[in-house]
Amino acid sequence: MFEQALDKAEVLIEALPWIKEATGKTVVIKYGGAAMVDDELRENVMSDIVLMKLIGINPVIVHGGGKDITRLSEQLGLPVAFKDGLRVTPPEVMDIVKMVLVGKVNQELVAQLNGHGHIAVGLNGADGHIVKAEQVSEELGLVGSVTAIDTTLIADLVTNDYIPLIASVAVGADGRSYNVNADVVAGEVAAAIGAHKVIFLTDVDGLYRDFSDKGSLISRLSLAEARALLEEGQLAKGMLPKLQSCVKALASGVFRAHILNGTIPHALLIEVFTDEGIGTMIVPDEDGLSRGGFVAAPLDNLASKLHG
Amino acid sequence: MFEQALDKAEVLIEALPWIKEATGKTVVIKYGGAAMVDDELRENVMSDIVLMKLIGINPVIVHGGGKDITRLSEQLGLPVAFKDGLRVTPPEVMDIVKMVLVGKVNQELVAQLNGHGHIAVGLNGADGHIVKAEQVSEELGLVGSVTAIDTTLIADLVTNDYIPLIASVAVGADGRSYNVNADVVAGEVAAAIGAHKVIFLTDVDGLYRDFSDKGSLISRLSLAEARALLEEGQLAKGMLPKLQSCVKALASGVFRAHILNGTIPHALLIEVFTDEGIGTMIVPDEDGLSRGGFVAAPLDNLASKLHG
Amino acid sequence: MFEQALDKAEVLIEALPWIKEATGKTVVIKYGGAAMVDDELRENVMSDIVLMKLIGINPVIVHGGGKDITRLSEQLGLPVAFKDGLRVTPPEVMDIVKMVLVGKVNQELVAQLNGHGHIAVGLNGADGHIVKAEQVSEELGLVGSVTAIDTTLIADLVTNDYIPLIASVAVGADGRSYNVNADVVAGEVAAAIGAHKVIFLTDVDGLYRDFSDKGSLISRLSLAEARALLEEGQLAKGMLPKLQSCVKALASGVFRAHILNGTIPHALLIEVFTDEGIGTMIVPDEDGLSRGGFVAAPLDNLASKLHG
Amino acid sequence: MFEQALDKAEVLIEALPWIKEATGKTVVIKYGGAAMVDDELRENVMSDIVLMKLIGINPVIVHGGGKDITRLSEQLGLPVAFKDGLRVTPPEVMDIVKMVLVGKVNQELVAQLNGHGHIAVGLNGADGHIVKAEQVSEELGLVGSVTAIDTTLIADLVTNDYIPLIASVAVGADGRSYNVNADVVAGEVAAAIGAHKVIFLTDVDGLYRDFSDKGSLISRLSLAEARALLEEGQLAKGMLPKLQSCVKALASGVFRAHILNGTIPHALLIEVFTDEGIGTMIVPDEDGLSRGGFVAAPLDNLASKLHG
Amino acid sequence: MFEQALDKAEVLIEALPWIKEATGKTVVIKYGGAAMVDDELRENVMSDIVLMKLIGINPVIVHGGGKDITRLSEQLGLPVAFKDGLRVTPPEVMDIVKMVLVGKVNQELVAQLNGHGHIAVGLNGADGHIVKAEQVSEELGLVGSVTAIDTTLIADLVTNDYIPLIASVAVGADGRSYNVNADVVAGEVAAAIGAHKVIFLTDVDGLYRDFSDKGSLISRLSLAEARALLEEGQLAKGMLPKLQSCVKALASGVFRAHILNGTIPHALLIEVFTDEGIGTMIVPDEDGLSRGGFVAAPLDNLASKLHG
Amino acid sequence: MFEQALDKAEVLIEALPWIKEATGKTVVIKYGGAAMVDDELRENVMSDIVLMKLIGINPVIVHGGGKDITRLSEQLGLPVAFKDGLRVTPPEVMDIVKMVLVGKVNQELVAQLNGHGHIAVGLNGADGHIVKAEQVSEELGLVGSVTAIDTTLIADLVTNDYIPLIASVAVGADGRSYNVNADVVAGEVAAAIGAHKVIFLTDVDGLYRDFSDKGSLISRLSLAEARALLEEGQLAKGMLPKLQSCVKALASGVFRAHILNGTIPHALLIEVFTDEGIGTMIVPDEDGLSRGGFVAAPLDNLASKLHG
Repeated sequence: MFEQALDKAEVLIEALPWIKEATGKTVVIKYGGAAMVDDELRENVMSDIVLMKLIGINPVIVHGGGKDITRLSEQLGLPVAFKDGLRVTPPEVMDIVKMVLVGKVNQELVAQLNGHGHIAVGLNGADGHIVKAEQVSEELGLVGSVTAIDTTLIADLVTNDYIPLIASVAVGADGRSYNVNADVVAGEVAAAIGAHKVIFLTDVDGLYRDFSDKGSLISRLSLAEARALLEEGQLAKGMLPKLQSCVKALASGVFRAHILNGTIPHALLIEVFTDEGIGTMIVPDEDGLSRGGFVAAPLDNLASKLHG
Repeated sequence: MFEQALDKAEVLIEALPWIKEATGKTVVIKYGGAAMVDDELRENVMSDIVLMKLIGINPVIVHGGGKDITRLSEQLGLPVAFKDGLRVTPPEVMDIVKMVLVGKVNQELVAQLNGHGHIAVGLNGADGHIVKAEQVSEELGLVGSVTAIDTTLIADLVTNDYIPLIASVAVGADGRSYNVNADVVAGEVAAAIGAHKVIFLTDVDGLYRDFSDKGSLISRLSLAEARALLEEGQLAKGMLPKLQSCVKALASGVFRAHILNGTIPHALLIEVFTDEGIGTMIVPDEDGLSRGGFVAAPLDNLASKLHG
Repeated sequence: MFEQALDKAEVLIEALPWIKEATGKTVVIKYGGAAMVDDELRENVMSDIVLMKLIGINPVIVHGGGKDITRLSEQLGLPVAFKDGLRVTPPEVMDIVKMVLVGKVNQELVAQLNGHGHIAVGLNGADGHIVKAEQVSEELGLVGSVTAIDTTLIADLVTNDYIPLIASVAVGADGRSYNVNADVVAGEVAAAIGAHKVIFLTDVDGLYRDFSDKGSLISRLSLAEARALLEEGQLAKGMLPKLQSCVKALASGVFRAHILNGTIPHALLIEVFTDEGIGTMIVPDEDGLSRGGFVAAPLDNLASKLHG
Repeated sequence: MFEQALDKAEVLIEALPWIKEATGKTVVIKYGGAAMVDDELRENVMSDIVLMKLIGINPVIVHGGGKDITRLSEQLGLPVAFKDGLRVTPPEVMDIVKMVLVGKVNQELVAQLNGHGHIAVGLNGADGHIVKAEQVSEELGLVGSVTAIDTTLIADLVTNDYIPLIASVAVGADGRSYNVNADVVAGEVAAAIGAHKVIFLTDVDGLYRDFSDKGSLISRLSLAEARALLEEGQLAKGMLPKLQSCVKALASGVFRAHILNGTIPHALLIEVFTDEGIGTMIVPDEDGLSRGGFVAAPLDNLASKLHG
Repeated sequence: MFEQALDKAEVLIEALPWIKEATGKTVVIKYGGAAMVDDELRENVMSDIVLMKLIGINPVIVHGGGKDITRLSEQLGLPVAFKDGLRVTPPEVMDIVKMVLVGKVNQELVAQLNGHGHIAVGLNGADGHIVKAEQVSEELGLVGSVTAIDTTLIADLVTNDYIPLIASVAVGADGRSYNVNADVVAGEVAAAIGAHKVIFLTDVDGLYRDFSDKGSLISRLSLAEARALLEEGQLAKGMLPKLQSCVKALASGVFRAHILNGTIPHALLIEVFTDEGIGTMIVPDEDGLSRGGFVAAPLDNLASKLHG
Repeated sequence: MFEQALDKAEVLIEALPWIKEATGKTVVIKYGGAAMVDDELRENVMSDIVLMKLIGINPVIVHGGGKDITRLSEQLGLPVAFKDGLRVTPPEVMDIVKMVLVGKVNQELVAQLNGHGHIAVGLNGADGHIVKAEQVSEELGLVGSVTAIDTTLIADLVTNDYIPLIASVAVGADGRSYNVNADVVAGEVAAAIGAHKVIFLTDVDGLYRDFSDKGSLISRLSLAEARALLEEGQLAKGMLPKLQSCVKALASGVFRAHILNGTIPHALLIEVFTDEGIGTMIVPDEDGLSRGGFVAAPLDNLASKLHG
């Protein structure tokens, strides 16, 4: 028994400084893909988020939800069309987008989090005008590009210890709703609220130098390298907005951006509370820190932490 | 010019004490019926609510939205059935209810209010577990009766100067969503948060002694009289939950309950800032106050108001 | 009934933004002339001031009171003499000035305001050394010109929700009392406390381009125009210190200066809560605002007001 | 030099605990008689009061001023009449009372205190309705007996570190001014604000058992003994309201009442900061304390004072 | 790598609720015996205490130190005598006790803790009169029994995030120092400050039913059972004051008392952050909780923790 | 009696402004020499310090204690050697230094102060790492020179109204204890905490121009003069670190440095609360103030003190 206890003690001795450091930090999590569709994986992710909240980290969740929109559109006999990867969104499709994202997907996540307590509040960009957008082009209809983030409501809810869940619907200056990319919203929200981290939970393990070579996963990337990668133009289509959002967030002062495989159990927890990364981490250029996400508190410098 | 100015001065002299008194009070408004469907009426009601907010009153809005649910159900080929005035709600219909109330009706009201500023937040009973419910009967499916109100989130948002808009969807102890009556939710919320007033905006002018006689509108009703009226069992079906909710709210300490015709322009404003009522007002039995909704501050007792 | 109610609603819709905006602002009111002598007019003005206080505006009143001084001087056989419109004030006359202004006129106003509650506090420039002055000339005796304002006591009383009533007596560095012009005191106090407005209640309707032509009343004047008018040197004698004080106040950051006819019923109320002015308003040169005294809160910019 | 320094040290060692204890206490001082008329004595008393304020004691001063009223009444040809020691006060004499007390005597004291800083605020019973009164009898005119004290304004000014100087004029429920006894006002104010002490500065050394025998000065009197003395009915006329006010104050919880000879230099200072009394001190019946006015802080019980 | 990461995740998932719960709690640790003498063990214990502090637990340490006292006494030729296990302590030995405990042992612990930051403050019962005592008997000299604890200084230091280290020397009402039992001081301090836990770090694994049978270690004991054990009178001499102190602490509201083997590495950490106990734990009689020291926060009741 | 009372009044009138001014100021007192050895003198000094604390001054005491160290070293057969006035301090002697200073001398002073209440806390440079030092030279062993002061713990204790008593033992970056000069510690602590005064209580009356001429005592010295005196190199050996520390403290912003004869009764009290100095006072060069230590509050500038 003593050996097992000692093992646990060793894990705790490693983790305690990280836990101390993480307290009070805000982390924006873009949630989507397979990890959101599978019931067990979803419960897994949600309970990790609750645990993070319990320990004093403030999660803010952003989500989209493409497949349900397509299904309901088809059921109602509405056209389903994409252009450059963007859903063509005439007003009647926008109604579907809102009903599905705000009235269904968002509510399912709220319900699952609230199974652990009255802590989640479902929102979308129109509530408190969190996300403002403008039309991208006439032919795409109500597809919008993000123009501004109002952080007031998010900050108020985080201060009151709620977990905001934001569906990626925006509002225009014209009062109309816009269909916006959830990756972009996550990056912009992280930048606007000065988050400590932005984490993209997706279906793949991270960025690859050569996507066909599983061994070429990039573990750590500087901001400059990320920008170079974007300029090369060789990224997989789904990765593009994620990496752009990472770059945007870091450039605005976010400390770490991560692209994780949300289907790995407890990927979030491992990422936040241990040194070893999972997936790809993007860090500021001047960053000389170790792999870890938070700066661990060295024990011999305790005084400044306690009395500062 | 002087006469017109003097007229305005007289209105102000009448209104100023009411305005002073109303500051900081919370008013729950059940919004529904024709006043919600007509675009111009809706804009009218929304701008009155914004004006109330501007002057320091805290509105909390509860709404339902039956017709849209029926339409989408029919479009999707789902059965539309009612039993004792309640919509039979199997799980697949409950999905429609949520998509319509949370993803459509609620969002339209949020958008309209936020046209005046970033002040509205769309919610439903699952957010922060505001409204809890339990199943009424197997045959009605997910129709629920309200069992508890958690006021924390509403109070937090009101404190931060938002206007909460609550769609009448509840959450069960089993984590499932329930379809609940919006009148009942309005009355329970008013009771739970200790609102000053609960106002039901509907399509008729108020309660009638004899519904076929337009001259028999009841202007003022005591709580005891309202209870007698309920026991008589002669009320129009739509009025029943409204009057029951009024009684519930007053019995819990709400100061005034009103049933107003929301199609009369500025009915809300006239009700709150002048002595003359519109529609039917229900007051506590021991109430010896004048017709007005708030207690006016008599000018000769100013000291206790300013220095108390 | 509905039409009358709707009329009231329209007045309220016009007034509510002004009321919101006025809350917490300080307004210095110079009170004098016929409006102070007539009992009914005085009661009228005092109740308007109480109403302003009730709604959250902070009035500070400055007054003089020439006629009573002359009367008591004559009764006591003291010489009554004026030089350039200033009362020759040897020490024995200064005693009369103080007894009349501080012991009589000020007390009558205090009594009338306190008929509405325990809210008024009578002061003069010696209390807390509010108004400091120095001798103008040997031959005028204790006639003083204002050299400094100490706002501490006024601010403390306003913070505690009192209405300070200041009789225009000052104190010198030599500890002696000085007879000072009430118009000047009002302007200096407004400048020193950073009042939102200074209002001169007098017997005439305002400034006239040509005093003999009643149709030449100046409704609105820029600071530059007011300075030009002073340089022309054609002003009626009583208007000179008023307009000079307006200019002084505006130059120090006061937002609006008004010269009103205090004998018009509710002139104060109309001025503060409606768009149409009464009398003459002087505004900063760069001012592009409408006629109104306070900046109305446009409803579509509500968020910054509520969440700022 | 060392001996003199040591003497000073001994005085300080005696005084320091009293000074510590006195900090933050409120002391009501009735000021009147010869000590108020003589210029040098007045300056002496005023500078002692300033010193008390400096060290953290809060003085509240109440004063009357009979002789000046008589003089001005005579100058104006008004009747001067007394009944049972009370000035017959028809309305025209009441105007004189106010002009003299509020406009002259009060202002002279304010000026003298403010020679040491901007600390004094002149008041009378009408300001903030500090002192309310009702008519004693028709034949005495506007002579009033005190019915209520509103301590709000006094407390606000004391909190803001002003010294309130209250002229003994009261206001009636009918809004009229009343001529009230300054000794009574001092006792009532001390009782109402829960003062630590009330001190009557007068022309004689205190109470005498036998007024004709200077050796019979009563140094210390219990509340019960003071009541007995009042019942005996042998007191000098001027002492009666003073002793009654002492009894009233002590019965309401005031800790010490003193009758001192204000013409003795620094009588106030000696009384408050040393053990030996001057004049007559009245103490609660159960009082077993030493002669001193404040309870000295014994050095060996320091902890509860510092950490309590 | 993923498996190892997952293992860590599992430990974290187990520990996180305990960590959350422990934050802000105070734990009194009696430190002594072999664990205090061995340099490596001492560093081990000190770094566990620093880690507890880092995570937000407030340790308060009490220590004795018998062997050094004996050694110095012998060096100085002073008699070393014990009576009923208590050191006979004439004044000259008491000087040795203080010099060794306060000037040596306490300082060594302070130095070791402060190697991790400026967080430790060395104290003894005389500082701020933390521990008061009275003489046990004439023949034992300055051996004292604890009569009172003053928690002010401990609370002040804990509030300011220091770790107080208290040497077991007390002060008498007579101002003399007394030699008191460190186990008793630990129990009394825990009781007086309302500690969450008191932990006795000693050389043995805990209490045994039969000391000669290593298999009879008592893992968990109720308060009633502990009292019964004390009445039986079969306890090893060193265990007696420890168990008595445990009983005293629990009876005063301390939540858990532990007797641990301080020579087991990280015994403290394992005890506080995992479910399995080490050594003997004494719990209140009514206690139905699991083995763990703190009450874990079940995830499904999160709301009351976050919003309560 | 009146004359004696008047004398006391005069002393009070002189002292009150000084007392007011001293409130809240921190004074570092270096205590040592004969005044510390004699029991009666020690009680005298301690009760003056308690009186200063009572009136609101915050004393911080620094002490050494050479003779006891020598005695115990000799008893234990350890070598006693000095080099340039510094005690040669091998590790085994350092243990003696700590045991004597921390475990004996410091504790005796704590006990004496705490006889007046629970106000004293015994410390040394290792507690909270108040005093850091580095080795002076190999041959002197653990003699240290001060390198840094951490004021956190002192400030926390002063804020909580304790009197910190600091034994002159320091801690090195290597974790070892160092023997440091108490005069230097006093000056450095005064400089680091921004004390108002530093006072050196010693056995002589102050600095002499010519030590053999008792009439040449220097009463007042500017910082420049003090520096010149140090350069001359004629100072008595014991005075050197005191005067150097005075210069260091003044250069860091301390307002006054004093060298007093601690054997004169109440020297501290006379120094702090009267104008006449005892011993030698060193003042900043630009200082045009009178002999007194604190700046007296002139009565005519009271307002800025009370309302600022």
